[in-house]
Amino acid sequence: MPQALPATIVATHLERIRRSVPLTHVITNDVVTGFTANVLLALGAAPAMITALEEAGSFAAIASVLSVNVGTLTSAQAATIRIAVQSANQAGTPWVLDPVAAGVLPYRTELCRELLQQHPAAIRGNASEIMALAGQAAAGKGVDSANQSEQAIEAAQVLAKNSGAIVAVTGEIDYITDGERVVSIKAGDPLMTRVTGTGCALSSVVAAFIAGCEEKDRLDAVASACAVMAIAGQRAAAKAKGPGSFVPAFLDNLYLLDAVTISEALA
Amino acid sequence: MPQALPATIVATHLERIRRSVPLTHVITNDVVTGFTANVLLALGAAPAMITALEEAGSFAAIASVLSVNVGTLTSAQAATIRIAVQSANQAGTPWVLDPVAAGVLPYRTELCRELLQQHPAAIRGNASEIMALAGQAAAGKGVDSANQSEQAIEAAQVLAKNSGAIVAVTGEIDYITDGERVVSIKAGDPLMTRVTGTGCALSSVVAAFIAGCEEKDRLDAVASACAVMAIAGQRAAAKAKGPGSFVPAFLDNLYLLDAVTISEALA
Amino acid sequence: MPQALPATIVATHLERIRRSVPLTHVITNDVVTGFTANVLLALGAAPAMITALEEAGSFAAIASVLSVNVGTLTSAQAATIRIAVQSANQAGTPWVLDPVAAGVLPYRTELCRELLQQHPAAIRGNASEIMALAGQAAAGKGVDSANQSEQAIEAAQVLAKNSGAIVAVTGEIDYITDGERVVSIKAGDPLMTRVTGTGCALSSVVAAFIAGCEEKDRLDAVASACAVMAIAGQRAAAKAKGPGSFVPAFLDNLYLLDAVTISEALA
Repeated sequence: MPQALPATIVATHLERIRRSVPLTHVITNDVVTGFTANVLLALGAAPAMITALEEAGSFAAIASVLSVNVGTLTSAQAATIRIAVQSANQAGTPWVLDPVAAGVLPYRTELCRELLQQHPAAIRGNASEIMALAGQAAAGKGVDSANQSEQAIEAAQVLAKNSGAIVAVTGEIDYITDGERVVSIKAGDPLMTRVTGTGCALSSVVAAFIAGCEEKDRLDAVASACAVMAIAGQRAAAKAKGPGSFVPAFLDNLYLLDAVTISEALA
Repeated sequence: MPQALPATIVATHLERIRRSVPLTHVITNDVVTGFTANVLLALGAAPAMITALEEAGSFAAIASVLSVNVGTLTSAQAATIRIAVQSANQAGTPWVLDPVAAGVLPYRTELCRELLQQHPAAIRGNASEIMALAGQAAAGKGVDSANQSEQAIEAAQVLAKNSGAIVAVTGEIDYITDGERVVSIKAGDPLMTRVTGTGCALSSVVAAFIAGCEEKDRLDAVASACAVMAIAGQRAAAKAKGPGSFVPAFLDNLYLLDAVTISEALA
Repeated sequence: MPQALPATIVATHLERIRRSVPLTHVITNDVVTGFTANVLLALGAAPAMITALEEAGSFAAIASVLSVNVGTLTSAQAATIRIAVQSANQAGTPWVLDPVAAGVLPYRTELCRELLQQHPAAIRGNASEIMALAGQAAAGKGVDSANQSEQAIEAAQVLAKNSGAIVAVTGEIDYITDGERVVSIKAGDPLMTRVTGTGCALSSVVAAFIAGCEEKDRLDAVASACAVMAIAGQRAAAKAKGPGSFVPAFLDNLYLLDAVTISEALA
């Protein structure tokens, strides 16, 4: 039975991010780089999109955390990702995998399976992606999921056990698990699916939240990342006229979020 | 004499998009990827920016439609475009060409001429680009047109006849032709020229509108794509203080557009 | 002692940009391409992001000015930058360098040092970047500065003398120097640091302002570029609820800026 997440835990993790300003090394897809950087800046993290083969390794070693997303994978980017992940592991930097469209396209699915062997600290995907990585049949359509998140809870637990990562399967409801315990977050608003990059940005927020976090607290940290995005999404959608006005309102709400608004939203 | 487009035709095509949610494979330039995805999502299509040489061919075969834009062409992207177009043609997937700055820069002009032989279903460009592809002297300056759209009507007809594509030449007034019939759309608002990517995004909207459309209705579908962008642009500009507030208002209006607002705007 | 910049000078340079619509060739990082284009369009310049090895040389020769930013440098982009800068120099096109994270990552630091020998007309960076290029020890953290801009005034003067460029070191206060004279601009608002790309976009605005400007007026032109961004930032922040609503308000204010609002802000 999935557990709810207490508001105080979310507020504590958010406060930790704002105090520590984690240097978040992001290697992501072309579509969402600017939005992802703005989401991290609004929350109080310090994003750095370092993507050169010549630089990604040394930067992953000095960053607080690394976030990897295969949304617009190319062979050059695959090489950069391999180097960055290897360097992160050597330096003890935790890293997060966002397996965009895994299961749909063999090239990226193979890279994601290879990366699973490299000990990601967390994995964030939709139901189809998580089921594909767990070896279950899934019905992906392009970059969106054709499965509901609750269908993937068991797959998420299997994937978490096999990989050692915290796994977040996100959708109308988000489920976050370490393989045993499952936490659920009632997600933001359907309007978030009409804006590109909310899922991809969440993966980098997950990275920022696990930076400097003790391993025993990682499940709470990942769930807190999902919660702040969901709460800011709900609050923005309540005032937005559509997906255009949603985006500035969402970033404002990430920036303004505090213990009071978190507590109201999760009550 | 250019014809006006009845509001009922525009509303019917928009309704069709929202019902069918066409999987729109977009290979476009670095500047406009996020905005293009948000425009397609706001309208109700499903964008997927798949750009790897290893993936673009197989994805073009499963997508509903392919949109190709050469705005920040590189040799790697040219290779990906060739594979995607070939695969689209083999699978019977229609595809759209946006020949950004054709006529100004020889490298991309040559690629666009080569692609013209690959049977695009539609071509969307400004007057200078369409004149250059039709083999007429044009006065381009960078990525903007130095010619008025009406100067390119004849070039658009020649290009449509020679290529078999529906050709849309866009500017203060948009003209859409199959080589014989010409439809005109009074375009949105001068503010749209102060926002990057409105033309590039329109080309991908054209793609979404021809997805699953019978060939005899393609001229109407392309003109309907131009009309929804123009109407949303007019409505957004009426409330915007400048190009900054125009963007969220434009996306909101794309999302909110319906038979009533279309009918009011074209009355 | 840094000098203030008279409002009439800023207004005159802005008016010149709007009249001449400089074709601004921008080679910048993946994160900020769209925002940079929108900033230039809002101000009245004509941005063109031409990044192919095959095209960047010939385009730099026909552009009014070239802007180079190494924020997401790759080896392919380094090759394109070298060709564009060489071509710009041969054609007498002035060019601007934004040395993002110079001093932190050796690969880009070396390229920036190499480019310093190629006679940039202007250099815009934060304190850590300018100190690193001037050969002084600096404390950079990722892409943000760990130094205050006033700590880098002397480094900026040294760098200006050695390179022949106008050097702008930006932060809470911006300092602009030709090696002798120093002009200061009280910068926009802390909210600007919560939005990605305001510094990178400023470098391309600097480029637009030096396009077609006599060499003796370049210091004033670069300072005017800093001033319009700072003024639009102040005005936007006064109404914004957070970094999300700041962005559209900032672009609107760039578009609406005139002699009256400039005069009010600098009074």
